[in-house]
This record gives sequence, structure tokens and C-alpha cells, in this order.
Amino acid sequence: MNEPKNMQKVIERVLKRITPSKKEVENVESLCKKIMEVAKSFENKYNFIPMFCGSVAKGTWIPPAEIDLFLIFPENLSREELEKRGLEAGKKICKKLKAKFEKKYTEHAYLHCFVPWKGKLYEMDIVPCYHITPDKIKSAVDRTPWHVKYVVQHLKEEQKNDVRLLKKFCKAHGIYGADILHKGFSGYLCELLIIKFGSFEKLVKEASNWYPQVLLYIEKLPEKNIIEQFKESPLVFIDPVDEKRNVAAALSFESFFKFVKACKEFLKNPSEKFFFPKEKSFSVQKLREILRKRDSKFYILMFPSLDVHEDILASQLRKLAKFMKRKLTNYGFSIHKTEYFILKDKFGILIEAEVWKLPKVMKRIGPEIMSKHAKEFLKHYASKKAWIEDGFWVIEDEREFQTIEEFIKKMFSGSCKKLKEKGIPSYIAKQGKKLMLYTGDSELIKLACGNEEFRKWLTKYFEENFNIFSIL
Amino acid sequence: MNEPKNMQKVIERVLKRITPSKKEVENVESLCKKIMEVAKSFENKYNFIPMFCGSVAKGTWIPPAEIDLFLIFPENLSREELEKRGLEAGKKICKKLKAKFEKKYTEHAYLHCFVPWKGKLYEMDIVPCYHITPDKIKSAVDRTPWHVKYVVQHLKEEQKNDVRLLKKFCKAHGIYGADILHKGFSGYLCELLIIKFGSFEKLVKEASNWYPQVLLYIEKLPEKNIIEQFKESPLVFIDPVDEKRNVAAALSFESFFKFVKACKEFLKNPSEKFFFPKEKSFSVQKLREILRKRDSKFYILMFPSLDVHEDILASQLRKLAKFMKRKLTNYGFSIHKTEYFILKDKFGILIEAEVWKLPKVMKRIGPEIMSKHAKEFLKHYASKKAWIEDGFWVIEDEREFQTIEEFIKKMFSGSCKKLKEKGIPSYIAKQGKKLMLYTGDSELIKLACGNEEFRKWLTKYFEENFNIFSIL
Repeated sequence: MNEPKNMQKVIERVLKRITPSKKEVENVESLCKKIMEVAKSFENKYNFIPMFCGSVAKGTWIPPAEIDLFLIFPENLSREELEKRGLEAGKKICKKLKAKFEKKYTEHAYLHCFVPWKGKLYEMDIVPCYHITPDKIKSAVDRTPWHVKYVVQHLKEEQKNDVRLLKKFCKAHGIYGADILHKGFSGYLCELLIIKFGSFEKLVKEASNWYPQVLLYIEKLPEKNIIEQFKESPLVFIDPVDEKRNVAAALSFESFFKFVKACKEFLKNPSEKFFFPKEKSFSVQKLREILRKRDSKFYILMFPSLDVHEDILASQLRKLAKFMKRKLTNYGFSIHKTEYFILKDKFGILIEAEVWKLPKVMKRIGPEIMSKHAKEFLKHYASKKAWIEDGFWVIEDEREFQTIEEFIKKMFSGSCKKLKEKGIPSYIAKQGKKLMLYTGDSELIKLACGNEEFRKWLTKYFEENFNIFSIL
Repeated sequence: MNEPKNMQKVIERVLKRITPSKKEVENVESLCKKIMEVAKSFENKYNFIPMFCGSVAKGTWIPPAEIDLFLIFPENLSREELEKRGLEAGKKICKKLKAKFEKKYTEHAYLHCFVPWKGKLYEMDIVPCYHITPDKIKSAVDRTPWHVKYVVQHLKEEQKNDVRLLKKFCKAHGIYGADILHKGFSGYLCELLIIKFGSFEKLVKEASNWYPQVLLYIEKLPEKNIIEQFKESPLVFIDPVDEKRNVAAALSFESFFKFVKACKEFLKNPSEKFFFPKEKSFSVQKLREILRKRDSKFYILMFPSLDVHEDILASQLRKLAKFMKRKLTNYGFSIHKTEYFILKDKFGILIEAEVWKLPKVMKRIGPEIMSKHAKEFLKHYASKKAWIEDGFWVIEDEREFQTIEEFIKKMFSGSCKKLKEKGIPSYIAKQGKKLMLYTGDSELIKLACGNEEFRKWLTKYFEENFNIFSIL
């Protein structure tokens, strides 16, 4: 078994590519010193404590550095006051740093800034939060300073590179980030995993044998009734800072299995491609062949982009995909799969259908023969042909939509308000009039030919998930 | 309201056409006398009591008369002995009457005979049964002599024509007979209905307001726990000869509603066509138009006839229709309706499909994510693409049958034994190799053009049941 040696070599090569250079570290450190100076100059006026959070504070960043500056306010402030003061202080800080900024929102408002420093632009978030213990937190970000403190105390100097490796490894597999788009591993979870298992290599060895549900903790195992609450999660990592929280709560089964599978394969055959994957893009021939083999029917609903946070858009597209599937199924069509995509200037969903055309004649299954609702049913459909099937009343009716296309067109007709009333999520309803509908193999191929980004996504649609669950 | 007058006229005209002439009655009476003479000559040798049953015995027959001769044996005889002696005696009787006969079976063997009398051939059944009280009967026919006695005692002379009217009325609507094919009104039930309500006219008025469940009795209402057993029946008529029996047990909901609907309409607008309906037959244009409007797909599975009792064939065809529907549904196809038909020299089923072609790619829904069977499932489909949908494991597989036609051809390939093993009923399996499969609109039209009997059946398929349940 020369595998560890081999792995060591790969790891060394990867680290060379992802560790910040001495020069870069110095630059970021001097920038941070400057930022802290500026922040402290407003400390008294606004009554906050400035603190660096995120990977820079924890020394686990991969270039380019992104700086998180937290402004920690007293807990007796109202939410409104917190936001107001936080943003005001933030703006003052930006002004002094000659930084450009924009207001953004997750749970509450924060500033996203671009700070000029030594000929470069550094991204920075200025986030107001409360000074409060983790068991009493008022907003999600109040816990962050405690996480930073925990990691700074427990992550050894030599483990910082292991965290970098793990983050890059996750990113390469599309499972980095606890957001809706990735449903993956957060930075904090990566750090805890290294603290728990000691190194990237040890973690990989451990994780290659994981199967849901995995329960991890550092300080002490919490009580059964707390663990019970996490029974839907493939991985439970008890937050050492708040035992009522699962750090891996956002992790999906897909991401979990992708990770385990990747660990298994990396262990067997270590290589840099696990950190720097090539994005595949099927040729037109290959796509054509796949489509012919499947013999299903594709519908692409595409809309031009609009100004909305990716996380919100992703969540709305996911809802739309589910909504369309449910509706189409109710109308008697059969859906193989729905998926959503977000490209640079477009977004939308794909519907792969098993049944997309139906006869005009249709059957409605009514109540059981002897049900008390039978009379009502028969009365209501008195003009229709009726019979009994397997003990139920059945009537023959005309179908509203004979094809999926008819349904989609009807669904997206009308004003934005109408679309929202029908159940289409708000941002998509806003773009409803700009729907571009592509259907069938040749239109799909044409679309993939004209848009490399879409073609890559489509390649993933056909390839992704392949085998990721076969980890046994 | 001149409706009763009108009805009376119609009834008179109908009775003229269905009441046997004086001459005919005399002929049948003299024949019966002769038969009884012959039967009695074997009474002592075989130890039975001969008795006429059926409509001739009750004086409610419609020409041509069919005679039922029951040979009533002592109850201590074994079933085997009963059959043996009954058939032997029957054959002797036939010989003396110069009648041709054939052995037939329902619950047990009996003789079906053709008796020559005054230049005509009369049909007669010779049925052996036990001399036993109705609460202890050993075979279904043991009750018949009691029914005859009851009707003879309770049906008034002037009500016999009402029974004839009712029988003809039911026949005209395809709901006469308690067999599997008709699931309708038995002769005995018709007689009891007239005894109960007094006349055909009174019954029609009563029945036009029926809605399931209708409970009827003559002597006395039986206990609740007995009625409880009949809760699946649209009509319960407690047998005055055996209160544990529902005389209308064989009546289907379809037949019940057809009857009610017919009564309602006859009351509203009396006419002879309620007794002498014309069999409809759609023109080719009309059929073409219907098919185009439905836009569904038809499959006709047709086999050449073989020598089997219609009741048994009907029951097997019904089973086949259900079986095919279930199987096709399991394979992802969608069936609008299946129906069977029995023609003079052919029989088979019709399948009307909503979905008859599917993609090659298919989805298999597996266990819930956290189920203990999940590991097994993932292992089994390790080579397949997999994902999670609504909390369930899903894998992508290749479909075995892409079209209904492929499935039918596979289902009917192989020896008769193989077909039976697959679940195809025995008589149909026997003809399996002779399957003729017609599919699609043009083949259906061609078939209907070449076979008037089939065309009439098809016309019924499209028309029948129409409105029969809208009786409110």
C-alpha cells in the first residue's frame, strides 16, 4: 500500500495552489490592521465591539481573501435600532476606507464592500450582530463570533491547511456552502471536522465508511431527546458552542453521499482532479445519442435574469419545479424529473416527461358506490357517461389539456399578479411574460449548441448523481 | 295526466305480442302431461319425485316455452349418487320421449334436451336435486321447487301477464337473468316483485324512485344482522322461502340503475320500444368521428370461439380484462377502460388506452431515505443513476415494454401451459396461439365494417351506460 505516500504528494501539490503566499498574507494582515483601526474609531460613538470573523479571522482562507467584519452591539438594542446603527457605522467605516458598498439582506441587512488596498480590491462584509450567549441568540449571525472564538482556540496552526484542503475538496464537488443552492458543508463544519479527526487525510479515511445517520460531537454527547430532533439529517455534528444545534443541518443526502463517495475514490486513487475538476460538456453527437436512448420528452422553461439573490432565486425555482410537477401529474401527465438551473443571464427549469400527450377523453374517479357522496357526484355529472370500476363511480369527461405544452402556455398566460395567484413564485411571475419555451430533442440540442453554460449544466443533468449513492 | 291511459294501451299492445296463444298453451300443457307420465314411470325405480319448475310450471312463460323438469331425490343420497341416478333417469326419460340431449354443468350436471312435440322442438332441462327444506339445502337448485310452490300459491292468475311484461321489459334492457353475463333480474325475482307490488304498472311507479339500497320483503322483515350481510347490494329482496337469502344478490349496480332509469322514462313517455328495442349500429362515419373525438387508442384481442358455457367464458373474459388492466397499469401504461365481448364465433376483450407508449428511460421509486431497506435498495441498483425525490430513493432504469403492443405480444407468447402460469384464464390460454390483435382507429373501423355483430357491440360500448346513473 503506497497510497498514503501518493496521497501526501497530491496534497502537497494541491496546497501549493491554494495556500496564500507570504506576500498575500502580509497584505491581508496589514489591511485588517487598517480596518480594525478605522472600526475602533467609531466604537464609542455607536457602542459596538468590532471583530473579524470568517476564514480570514480563523486563518483558513483560500485566496482571494474575503473579510468579515462583525460589529457587536449590546443585546438590549431593538432589531430596528441594531440595523440602523450597524448600517450607519458600516457606511462611515467604508467612507474612511474609500470602499464602495451595497446593502444586502439575508436574515437582516448588512453591507457588502469593496476595499481598495495596495492596488487590489478586497471584498468585505460588514455585519451587525448582538452580544449575546449562543443559547439566547436573537439572530443567526449572533452565533458566529462564538464559532470564531471556538475555532481560534481549538484549531491548531498545522491544521489550517487541512481545512483549506477540505474546503477546496468540497468546492470541487459542488458541496461547499450551507446555502440552498449547494446544501453542503459550511466553513465552520469543515473546521470542526478537522478539529474532530485531526487532519484531512484522517477525515477522508473515516468518512469513506460513513452511512446515514452519522453522529459526531467534540465536547460531549448531548441528551437523546436532542439527537432525536435531528433524525432527518444524514450527518449530525453537535455544535460545541450550542449543543441544541446540528452544524450539518443544511447538508442534503445528495451532498452527504457525494462527499462519502469522493472520499472513497480519493482514498483509492488520489489525484489532483478531486480538487481541480474539469467541467464536462457533452458533444452534440453524445447529447443526441442520450436523448434518442431515453426517448422521453424535454421542456425547457427559460427566463431572462433579474436582480435577486441567488439563494432566493434557487429556492423559488425549486418551488416552481415541484409545483409544475404536481400540477402536471394532477392533469394526468407523468413526469420523469424536474430540475432548475441558474446561468449568468438566464434561469429556468427543465421538465423531462414520460407522458406528455393524452386523449381528449378522460376518466374521473368518484366516490365509492355506497358512499353518501355518491348521489351528489352522480347528480353533478348527470350529463356524462358513467360506470362503476373496482367499487368506485367513474365518469367520462373531456380533458382540459391534451398536451404538456398547452398546460404550460395556459399557466404562464396573464399578468404577473395572475401568475402569482396561480401559485407561481413571485420573481418568476415577474418574468412570466418573458418565458421562452423550448421543447423536444432538436430544440434542446439547438439550445445547448448556442449556450455553452447551458450545455455544461445539461451535461451535469445527464451525468450527475450517477453512482453517487452506490457507496456500499 | 293521461299517462296511465297511454301506458295501458302500450301494455295491451305488448301483451298481444308476448302472451302465448291458446293453441300454444294447449300444446305445452299436453306436452307437460306426456312428460310427467313418462317421468312418473321411472319414479319407483330411481326413487325420485318429478316436478315441473320454471316459468312453465308457474304459468309465466313467454314463447317459446322452455320446460324445467326437476327430479327430486331423498336428501340422504351422496352428491355422486344424486348425479349418477339423476342423469341415468333423465336419459331414460329422453329415450321414451324421443328427445335429443346433452350433458351440461352449472353447479352440478344436468341434461339439456330437445323434445319433439306436435311438429315442433321444445327445449327442456332435466335437473336432479334434493328433497330438503330451504334452510338446509345442499345445492343451489334444491331451493327451486320451494320457489315454485311459493309463486304458485301467491301469484294471482291476473298477475301472470304482469310478470311476462316485467320479464320482457328487463330482457329488452339486457338485465334479465341472474347470470354473470347479465347480472340482472331472475325470473323468480320478477315474480316476487309483482306479488309484492301487485302489478307491472305499480312496480314501475315504485321503482322509478328507487335509489340504493332498497330493502324489500313480503312475509316479515328479517333481523338486522341478516340485512347487514347484504349491505353491498343495491337491491335486497328477502326470499320469503329462506330469510337468509337475498333474491337480488346477483343484481349489479349497473343493472339496478338501468332498471330504475328505464322505469322513470317509461312512466314519462310509455312506448313499445321499452319492450322491443332496436339494436343500434353506428355508421362508419359516426364511428370514425367518435374515435377522432376521443383521441385514445384501442386494442382488440380476439379469439375464435370454443365449446364452453357462456357463463364460464364471460367470467374468464372479465378476469382477463381486469388482469390486463392491472398488468398494463403496473408497467406504467394508463387504461381508460377494458370490456369483453362474446360474438357468435369469436370472443375477446377491448382495451381503450390513455397512455400506450412510454420512454425507454423509467423511474423506480424505492424506500424512504432513512428506511432500513434503503441500503439494500442502493446496493441492488448500484450501477444505476439514483436520486432522492420527495423523501424517497429513486433510480433510473430501462423500461421492459415501451408500448402496450409489445406487452400483449409477450403476454400471449408461449404454450397454453405457459400462458396459464402467467395468469391467463384457462379457456383463453387454450386459444392463446390464435390471438388476433387489432389496434388503432383504422383497424377498429375495418373490423367493425367486416363484422356487423361486432359493430353492434362496439356501438353499445360507446353508447351504453350513457346517462343510466343520472336518475336524480
